[in-house]
Amino acid sequence: MSLEKFSIIESTLREGEQFVNAFFTTEQKIRIASLLDAFGVEYIEMTTPCASPQSERDCAAIAKLGLKTKTLTHTRCNLEDVKLAVETGVNGVDVVIGTSSKLRDFSHGRSINQIIDLAQEVFEYLRKQNVEMRFSTEDTLRSDPEDLFQVYEAVDKIGVHRVGIADTVGIGNPRQIYDLVSQLRKRVKADIEFHGHNDTGCAIANAFAALEAGATHIDTTILGIGERNGITSLGGLVARIYSVNPEYVAKYQLPLLMHLDQVIARLVNVDIPFNNYITGFSAFTHKAGIHTKAVLNNPSTYEVLKPEDFGLTRYIHIAHRLTGWNAIRYRADQLGLELTDEEIKHITEEVKTLADLHPLTLDEVDSLLHAMRNSQPETEAATDTTFEPA
Amino acid sequence: MSLEKFSIIESTLREGEQFVNAFFTTEQKIRIASLLDAFGVEYIEMTTPCASPQSERDCAAIAKLGLKTKTLTHTRCNLEDVKLAVETGVNGVDVVIGTSSKLRDFSHGRSINQIIDLAQEVFEYLRKQNVEMRFSTEDTLRSDPEDLFQVYEAVDKIGVHRVGIADTVGIGNPRQIYDLVSQLRKRVKADIEFHGHNDTGCAIANAFAALEAGATHIDTTILGIGERNGITSLGGLVARIYSVNPEYVAKYQLPLLMHLDQVIARLVNVDIPFNNYITGFSAFTHKAGIHTKAVLNNPSTYEVLKPEDFGLTRYIHIAHRLTGWNAIRYRADQLGLELTDEEIKHITEEVKTLADLHPLTLDEVDSLLHAMRNSQPETEAATDTTFEPA
Repeated sequence: MSLEKFSIIESTLREGEQFVNAFFTTEQKIRIASLLDAFGVEYIEMTTPCASPQSERDCAAIAKLGLKTKTLTHTRCNLEDVKLAVETGVNGVDVVIGTSSKLRDFSHGRSINQIIDLAQEVFEYLRKQNVEMRFSTEDTLRSDPEDLFQVYEAVDKIGVHRVGIADTVGIGNPRQIYDLVSQLRKRVKADIEFHGHNDTGCAIANAFAALEAGATHIDTTILGIGERNGITSLGGLVARIYSVNPEYVAKYQLPLLMHLDQVIARLVNVDIPFNNYITGFSAFTHKAGIHTKAVLNNPSTYEVLKPEDFGLTRYIHIAHRLTGWNAIRYRADQLGLELTDEEIKHITEEVKTLADLHPLTLDEVDSLLHAMRNSQPETEAATDTTFEPA
Repeated sequence: MSLEKFSIIESTLREGEQFVNAFFTTEQKIRIASLLDAFGVEYIEMTTPCASPQSERDCAAIAKLGLKTKTLTHTRCNLEDVKLAVETGVNGVDVVIGTSSKLRDFSHGRSINQIIDLAQEVFEYLRKQNVEMRFSTEDTLRSDPEDLFQVYEAVDKIGVHRVGIADTVGIGNPRQIYDLVSQLRKRVKADIEFHGHNDTGCAIANAFAALEAGATHIDTTILGIGERNGITSLGGLVARIYSVNPEYVAKYQLPLLMHLDQVIARLVNVDIPFNNYITGFSAFTHKAGIHTKAVLNNPSTYEVLKPEDFGLTRYIHIAHRLTGWNAIRYRADQLGLELTDEEIKHITEEVKTLADLHPLTLDEVDSLLHAMRNSQPETEAATDTTFEPA
């Protein structure tokens, strides 16, 4: 289990750039890289310099920033591409090639032996360049395991630092990933990286299963942006690992997450999903009476993530038909209104009845509470400790 | 593995009503129930009639609709509540009680033996009422397994139809769920239901792991709405199971998914997340050159979900710096423009250069293609087979 010691390869500037709405300028890329550096990710991965003249310039510009985070660029498995990558001055080169029969037939058209020959040529060159070397297959989950292990063992012998598993189409499930990584862990000395798409809702769970099985590096993007509906999101991975032990993610500046998500949402012209991990607007809301009662007693009853650790606050929703009298009591206390249990229960019934008629605001609940307080006999009001005479 | 034969318990009208923005009127609830019936879910679950007078009336109204889908309501584990539930005329009663020490201490305050006594009383009553009986623990993942099995075995002996596991706080991970359901499968005869929250990104993967381990029923809501950031979404579960075998979800009217998501998004005043399973706007978009080339050859290279099975279409994005010449060639063919490979590659470079300067539209790419065609010598244009003389 490498949860105690794992690294994030933050790929917003590579996989994220493949999101349909992403068109980052040089300035925007530098801003994203700097924010990720401040957050504390161990690596940032950038689009191949072969993609366009700007891609090449941007790689070089970010490599020169002197960030604490290591810089990587992603390239196809050929000598020309990796040479250009090295020239940009990045700390590492992430080489990728498709190994599934689908990609071999319909994309690059090469056999497994040809892939190994290519990789050999590429890594013989790279290892003289003093850069970190990663070799990843693409569409790993639909590749023949024997093909995979043959290729991984070959590049491991050449001395690559990391081998990568990529669930390129989002088809993998956690038990498969756990098995595959466990087997790979026994076959190679290199670190193991996992990259997983989210088409069928397992990107976070698969990344977690990979770590449980011995993977060391996980690819993420901010908000999970990428091809199609994207990959493991930075915030989602953090939430998952935090739930096991907050110490495991204490190395990151967690209160920066909200800002990161907001910046990227603005740049790629989307809203932060209402249900986004940690930063979605409903992440720390509580509504049903039975939930709010318990959360008011002890937040951990219905919260595995402490909002305050992320610089956020919880919201207890009370103006609706599912409300309970404990939540109404809590509100009365917040307002400094002394009311009996009987009075609070009476107001709770009123709130439920009104909420059946129309959406209710907190103001309306407060009015009911104040009205009840004002209807109390003078003598009782005089004992209200919140209004002690000076 | 119960993937071949599982049932959905659609809880938009119960868990979904606990979403902070949900205030459904009677008419809206009937509309949602009817749409879910048309989609083909096996069950719909509704808020307890004890919540408010409208909740009670709505339960009864929907139970009377004569839907093909079975109607359930969710109640606390006490005689008064289940009696009211039965009176609404629903087909089944979903009884729940917290079993974790956290909920026993900070919520209802009962011991395990008291829980069993309560359950005994409740199910003795229910089994004379000719309704389906479900018993679920709450916050199951943080409960002592021995406590859990003691309670589940007791209610199984009484003859409940289903026992439920609820990851109420979203803390479970797929390997835990798999282990827990596998053990439970050996201990009880009853069907097994799984309800999972998504706080740490595992709601879909956990539901899938539960099915792999022998669970028979999965709780979902449309868009996943519920307390905090919600539970397993209907579309997400469908995507996950479809990726194993589309036959397993062929019993549902998949092209209705988009409409269901749109209706609920409007009613609870959220946008469909950009990255939502199947119905998010980016779910079937392809951008990077290497992806678009392969998808144009064979969509299954980078798609495990066929958009046409959901009444949707894919979008191949070509006007950007990551584009490849195969995608530009495809566009030229769509426009009926005969261009040589050299011409197409020249335009591809132009597109990349322009896209570095500013966001590019498809119109601009089309203009470049038309301009290239128009610049060809007359003689060559005369052989253009798309303009054969009549």
